[in-house]
Amino acid sequence: MPHALSTDLYELMMAAGYHAVGERPRASFELFVRELPPTRGYLVAAGLQQVVEFLESWACTPDEIAYLRELPALGGARREFFDHFLPQLRFTGDVWAVPEGVPVFAGEPLVRVTAPLPEAQLVETALLATVLFQTSIASKATRVVAAAGGRSVIEFGGRRAHGTEAAMLAARAACLGGCSATSNLDAGFRFGVPVSGTMAHSWVMAHADELTAFRRYTEVHGRRSVLLIDTYDPLAATQLIVEAKLQPHAVRLDSGDLGNLSRTVRAILDAGGLGQTQILASGDLDEYRVAELVTSGAPIDGFGVGTALSTSRDAPALGGVYKLVEIEREGVMVPLMKLSVGKQTVPAAKQVWRIPATGRTERDVVALEAETIGYGSPLLRQVMRGGVRCASSPDVFDSQAACLDAVGRLPESVRRFREPGPFRVDRSVGLERLLSRMMQSPTGAV
Amino acid sequence: MPHALSTDLYELMMAAGYHAVGERPRASFELFVRELPPTRGYLVAAGLQQVVEFLESWACTPDEIAYLRELPALGGARREFFDHFLPQLRFTGDVWAVPEGVPVFAGEPLVRVTAPLPEAQLVETALLATVLFQTSIASKATRVVAAAGGRSVIEFGGRRAHGTEAAMLAARAACLGGCSATSNLDAGFRFGVPVSGTMAHSWVMAHADELTAFRRYTEVHGRRSVLLIDTYDPLAATQLIVEAKLQPHAVRLDSGDLGNLSRTVRAILDAGGLGQTQILASGDLDEYRVAELVTSGAPIDGFGVGTALSTSRDAPALGGVYKLVEIEREGVMVPLMKLSVGKQTVPAAKQVWRIPATGRTERDVVALEAETIGYGSPLLRQVMRGGVRCASSPDVFDSQAACLDAVGRLPESVRRFREPGPFRVDRSVGLERLLSRMMQSPTGAV
Repeated sequence: MPHALSTDLYELMMAAGYHAVGERPRASFELFVRELPPTRGYLVAAGLQQVVEFLESWACTPDEIAYLRELPALGGARREFFDHFLPQLRFTGDVWAVPEGVPVFAGEPLVRVTAPLPEAQLVETALLATVLFQTSIASKATRVVAAAGGRSVIEFGGRRAHGTEAAMLAARAACLGGCSATSNLDAGFRFGVPVSGTMAHSWVMAHADELTAFRRYTEVHGRRSVLLIDTYDPLAATQLIVEAKLQPHAVRLDSGDLGNLSRTVRAILDAGGLGQTQILASGDLDEYRVAELVTSGAPIDGFGVGTALSTSRDAPALGGVYKLVEIEREGVMVPLMKLSVGKQTVPAAKQVWRIPATGRTERDVVALEAETIGYGSPLLRQVMRGGVRCASSPDVFDSQAACLDAVGRLPESVRRFREPGPFRVDRSVGLERLLSRMMQSPTGAV
Repeated sequence: MPHALSTDLYELMMAAGYHAVGERPRASFELFVRELPPTRGYLVAAGLQQVVEFLESWACTPDEIAYLRELPALGGARREFFDHFLPQLRFTGDVWAVPEGVPVFAGEPLVRVTAPLPEAQLVETALLATVLFQTSIASKATRVVAAAGGRSVIEFGGRRAHGTEAAMLAARAACLGGCSATSNLDAGFRFGVPVSGTMAHSWVMAHADELTAFRRYTEVHGRRSVLLIDTYDPLAATQLIVEAKLQPHAVRLDSGDLGNLSRTVRAILDAGGLGQTQILASGDLDEYRVAELVTSGAPIDGFGVGTALSTSRDAPALGGVYKLVEIEREGVMVPLMKLSVGKQTVPAAKQVWRIPATGRTERDVVALEAETIGYGSPLLRQVMRGGVRCASSPDVFDSQAACLDAVGRLPESVRRFREPGPFRVDRSVGLERLLSRMMQSPTGAV
């Protein structure tokens, strides 16, 4: 999980620079995604709980400070930087954020941090890595779950995730985005999300024959057993199960033509009196394959989705940034923007207002923090005040319910898997005015 | 980092099953990648150090056992499973593996674990997530480094990695694959790899004007300073640096037409007597963009490569698996294979022999463990014996040197970025004979 050194060296070099001249004006940074990946019509905010836990416990250990002290790159830092600033480092700022599970769009702040400049700066890398990754996975999960049309989707992808921490966080975000369970025990242990388990091919191979393997499993796990039937021949395996009068909860298909196999397996099970035994399918599934299987009427009761989900394989990274939007000068907050080609930022602390229209979400308005947009609801809520948490983190499945409801209210075109339509995000009158005023000034200052 | 619950529930369900019948035959599992991603002609093995550290310290905590005891899915496990088996769980097996930094191909075992079956089974998920992720990143790094043609490549992608642990491990693997440094402090702290830092746009924006921002930075960081020149206008910023007679180590361009900008910036620096000041470029770079810039002769001295590298964006997951290849029956190891459609495995414990030809690597031969292939060198080496490490882990930069040398010996067609040619991997006579014998038997047993 993120800790004080989960950051880039330049953050420390800048902190040493601010320290050297004794500067710590308050500043606000906003975390947002510049542009959605081509296959994403919306994103689902996730990772906030880990952000708050990180900021609450943020501190440098003596070992870490000893390491930093010896770094040639920090050779210009003052001695007090290592002796006082780093040992006393704590997060004392305010955080506003979009709750987990809420759909968001390009250019909308997901998190806003207001704190003394060095503090707000130093946490950049950890906040981006934490929020962007879980947001990717939660977004992907809502697509797979939508494709499954009410059938259960279980996250199976830990083994292909980007390391074991990523596996655990992907499982969490997948549940947030609608999965009914995960195979990942670490996520179950830490977050209380339901875990689900089947059987590996190795279990079948380790026994003298398939029937012995199936019998042994059901002797231990009884009605909970999910028997994997494709190690050799899936139809023969199903026949064995019927003949042996085993009564597994489900059988799992992990290879071959899942549509046709599931039909034949269903027929064998039904003819053998195993109408209650479900069929689970897995094996390189994603929202497209799941949608095909569901549309074709394949009698599959649940899907195990792995790699495509745990890595958001078709969009494995989001172009998310964390940008300085205002700074305290002579006691007042002054808006700031950058003008880099193709990477301009929008100045000032902002709020996002979501505008409904008869049960649907019509559009968003990005406004200055102080504005109120009638008929809308503000998305960002305060979660930390003066470095202390001021809102409880909802349970993953409470966030899931809110997520599925909110995604369901988005225009259908925005939810399309391929070439999704745009969602309307306007700027408020106040923000437009500020922007056009600042564009006149070559350094972006007002 | 991986720990005992970094696993899938089914591994525990199978372990409970083996425990219930008192079975713990020795078994060998091999970790390999079924098929390379379309843009990869080779992979570079990585992550072994973390695998060995994980296996050495593998144990369940009382809290974890208390969690498992209450899981409905493990309701069929015997009480002794929680009271004795889990508390006493340690890794007691042997591990053979391809050293980090060595190129590998589809179907070649990267790691072979031989241990009592439940132990070897339970570590599957953590081993896959650990090895496959770092292998992805190290492989990607070798491509970016090759594209840079001797200019330095610095890993900058922590903020877009799949969480902060992934950021740290990606930085490590990127250094293994040839990067000269990373911006990630956590990787520097843990692995001693060089760290490198520049300046963010926020530093420039936080100051009243660009010149003040540059002056303040160089006052603290002196000749180590890398000044970011694209917050407003890169050419005007370069002019400011020259006129103020600052002498930064480098300037960094992070947006716009990097080729043309670097030429003009170079000219301004040279005309201003700053011929020693380097130009670094960053901003959505990958091996293709880097190769274009280098080929066009852009005067860029180093590249900061972020998201594309830290997520292996074009190939963010590898189809890697961990398969049972032999099991002890009545005191002898018996080879095993599975026949699932499109997912057949190759039986028996194996060794990979690399065959050289006048300074180049010509082909590999996958052989039975006991075979010797003349003129070749075996790739897998024993790293653990009876649960204890029996080989030291080389330093990341020792592995890097071996990696760059070995990749350089691969046929040029295999190293191509787009549509790489195949590398010849043969099967030994012994392995072919075993395979054809086992294909006769419908359950794959000999």
